[in-house]
Amino acid sequence: MPSWSTPAPPAEQRRRYTPPVDPLDRATLALERALGPSVVDTDPTRCEPFARDESEAEGVTPRCVVHARTSDDVSVILRHCEENRVPVFPRAAGTGRSGGATAVVPGVVLDLRALSQVKELDRENLLAVVEPGVVTGTFHALVEAEGLFYPPDPQSAETCTLGGNAAENAGGPRAFKYGVTREYVLGLEAVTMGGERLRAGRRTAKGVTGYDVTGLLVGSEGTLAVFTELTLRLVPQPPLVCTLQALFATVDDAGRAVTALVGRRLVPRCLELLDTLCCQLLREAEPSLLPPGDCCMLLLELDGEHPEALERDASRLADACLHAGARSVHLARDEAERARLWAVRKRMSRALRARAASKLSEDVVGPRTRVPELLSRARAISERHRVVMPAYGHAGDGNLHVNFLWDDPADKPRVERAIEALFRATLDLGGTLSGEHGIGVLKAPFLPWEQSPALIAMQQRLKSVFDPSGCLNPGKIFPRPGHLGC
Amino acid sequence: MPSWSTPAPPAEQRRRYTPPVDPLDRATLALERALGPSVVDTDPTRCEPFARDESEAEGVTPRCVVHARTSDDVSVILRHCEENRVPVFPRAAGTGRSGGATAVVPGVVLDLRALSQVKELDRENLLAVVEPGVVTGTFHALVEAEGLFYPPDPQSAETCTLGGNAAENAGGPRAFKYGVTREYVLGLEAVTMGGERLRAGRRTAKGVTGYDVTGLLVGSEGTLAVFTELTLRLVPQPPLVCTLQALFATVDDAGRAVTALVGRRLVPRCLELLDTLCCQLLREAEPSLLPPGDCCMLLLELDGEHPEALERDASRLADACLHAGARSVHLARDEAERARLWAVRKRMSRALRARAASKLSEDVVGPRTRVPELLSRARAISERHRVVMPAYGHAGDGNLHVNFLWDDPADKPRVERAIEALFRATLDLGGTLSGEHGIGVLKAPFLPWEQSPALIAMQQRLKSVFDPSGCLNPGKIFPRPGHLGC
Repeated sequence: MPSWSTPAPPAEQRRRYTPPVDPLDRATLALERALGPSVVDTDPTRCEPFARDESEAEGVTPRCVVHARTSDDVSVILRHCEENRVPVFPRAAGTGRSGGATAVVPGVVLDLRALSQVKELDRENLLAVVEPGVVTGTFHALVEAEGLFYPPDPQSAETCTLGGNAAENAGGPRAFKYGVTREYVLGLEAVTMGGERLRAGRRTAKGVTGYDVTGLLVGSEGTLAVFTELTLRLVPQPPLVCTLQALFATVDDAGRAVTALVGRRLVPRCLELLDTLCCQLLREAEPSLLPPGDCCMLLLELDGEHPEALERDASRLADACLHAGARSVHLARDEAERARLWAVRKRMSRALRARAASKLSEDVVGPRTRVPELLSRARAISERHRVVMPAYGHAGDGNLHVNFLWDDPADKPRVERAIEALFRATLDLGGTLSGEHGIGVLKAPFLPWEQSPALIAMQQRLKSVFDPSGCLNPGKIFPRPGHLGC
Repeated sequence: MPSWSTPAPPAEQRRRYTPPVDPLDRATLALERALGPSVVDTDPTRCEPFARDESEAEGVTPRCVVHARTSDDVSVILRHCEENRVPVFPRAAGTGRSGGATAVVPGVVLDLRALSQVKELDRENLLAVVEPGVVTGTFHALVEAEGLFYPPDPQSAETCTLGGNAAENAGGPRAFKYGVTREYVLGLEAVTMGGERLRAGRRTAKGVTGYDVTGLLVGSEGTLAVFTELTLRLVPQPPLVCTLQALFATVDDAGRAVTALVGRRLVPRCLELLDTLCCQLLREAEPSLLPPGDCCMLLLELDGEHPEALERDASRLADACLHAGARSVHLARDEAERARLWAVRKRMSRALRARAASKLSEDVVGPRTRVPELLSRARAISERHRVVMPAYGHAGDGNLHVNFLWDDPADKPRVERAIEALFRATLDLGGTLSGEHGIGVLKAPFLPWEQSPALIAMQQRLKSVFDPSGCLNPGKIFPRPGHLGC
């Protein structure tokens, strides 16, 4: 069994499997012949950046990068890769945070950015048909110009793609009210290893015909099939939005506010938290962004149809925050003010990156009510392992981005122990390892911490149904024997 | 390959498979030994009702009905059935409309009604942990008493169970605003053939750890595994509800109203339609229910937090209906009035049943904007095949319950031709064969009309991952070779 092959192909296939002399050369040649050299790039310098994504996961320079132009190209590529049993790594913008697009072994990278057409926008039935390479932010602008709304809004919306979002089942701040990508993919066309096209799902609001293959493929991190078309559900765009910033002395106060406002049946579309260390680092980076003095921040956003209703909910939100001990609540009604408040949240990631040579961001999820406990455990871990660990994220969903900052590469082992301690704490509290980044390469070794051997084996058998030889995006999700992670 | 086995087990398994002398007797004996005779009922008279569900699908009296008390019982039952290679038919209330719980061949019926505990209700994290036999209506009352809300509301809510709802991915009128069962199942425990327990999913609002096995099992119609526990997402209960009844001269006017109000960004929680024939039959059954004269009805329901917002939306709904040509719009503010309006919709099914010796209800779905076209095609089919076909349903989702009424058994072939014509029309318009009833037995022969051979084969391979011998709820979803339906 080739070391990159995961999951282990069934025994009879291993027996059938005879490694070709140089499968990669054979595949590359076949692809050049089939698609032309302009589509198949073998230049090592140009291929090198396709080794990794925006995570810390290590990759190797692929033998070639194939820039697919059409779903036929995708079919041809997956046929030749399967015939030659070479690993293929599908990717679009490569903005993933868990190494899902990383080329972990020499192979073929399948670049889907050129499949970037919005094929259809059906205003009356509230749906769109898109290719996987459409940039999410571009799509937001397009549908909003029509009075429609596509809620999933990952932090990287300006650069990431709808295909990548579907592969990782991306979320974002608005998930608290609107749910994640999975709730918006009605149907899709995907190509499986070997090049077979598969149409699954529907164009209608409801449908229960057969198994939910669409839902299975969404969030499968490019390990089951490659999306070539997505049918997305849209909703009417809420005309009114207002944003609140609440500052608290402690994260426990902020946590109490979150529980209290949910208890009051308030459902802001966003409910973001920045812990004390985040606010401190932000203030150091840009003093104008925050008032002096230690604080922890909740950023809340409401949307709706009715001005009075929005006003009342806004004051109920403010009230819930003040009762929970907020020092100040700032309500932004106009766009400029809203932008200023969001700037704080949006600069977070960059501000942290600027603080240290290395930064890793985990996206653990705890039960909403246990967010303060999860944060205090994170603080204890930070002290015990002497790692700087600012945390922020989607408090309404209990989804925290706990960051790990370090400068000296020699500190990496300590960081890894801290990450493991965070994962243990998350699972102790009844949480899950990933809310929106996926498992990819970085969390694969920890999958058994959350899931039973029976469930993992079941998922590997599901993978084999789509990809018997294990050539599609190998090394992702499932821990490899003897593999201890990045 | 035994005639009931579906999907076809892979060749190597067919070779391995040697039918035992009397597998059913052996399984029954083993179950009696393991669970005691009080749990395993072999009395033919008492077993007979377990042959079928509430659909027209034919069944055979099972050899025994096992009344599971715990998830351990379920594990024992599935182990013995697998060891003896006998078909097992899981069921709870048996209220299904597509034959999903029908015992299509002699076998063991697994009755889950006694697994009816609500194990946990977490008010702050908005979730509940339940057993599959909890009656949906009982659960509604329980969570609403706590100010919480569980939106899925199938017509049979007073008798159907949460486990059956999850197996069929049930919807109901409120799905237009709140979505279907799948959106509310966060995680589950299920038992696979052979008796292995599988825990999938999560307790948190978000989570993307591994494949969405939970989503794959929801809507799999009891063909992959048997649910023993469900973790359900709840939402805050909307305190205000108001209901409107709009009467139109023609169904086209009603259809225009639906498109218009969606265009105005109105999202009532229910948007039900009763066609002209339904209204006529209702009036004949209970003259007091409707004013004289031909009409077609929209029943709309709004919910929310803010009286003014609700008032305004209600008047905007009324306005949209009147602009589309509504003859009258009736707004019900108090409970008594609301109940009176809903009575019309709730008596529909019974009124139709009373009209003919036989009644079949299909639940096709078309794109929302094409509902009027789907209804006019249904009328043409009704005339061509001389079958009485009243239609009602969830117009907001494009999900119509087209009924077929006949008295003389000799008319059945004509009815079947009419049903086939309706399915063709639905697919022509870009729709799907089932919105909430599932494929079960009745629609299995038509699956290939909607889905490609590649997609069907893929789903059969997925079934084999969970149930290699094909003993779990055989004869459902997938067409059997040479099998032309009920």
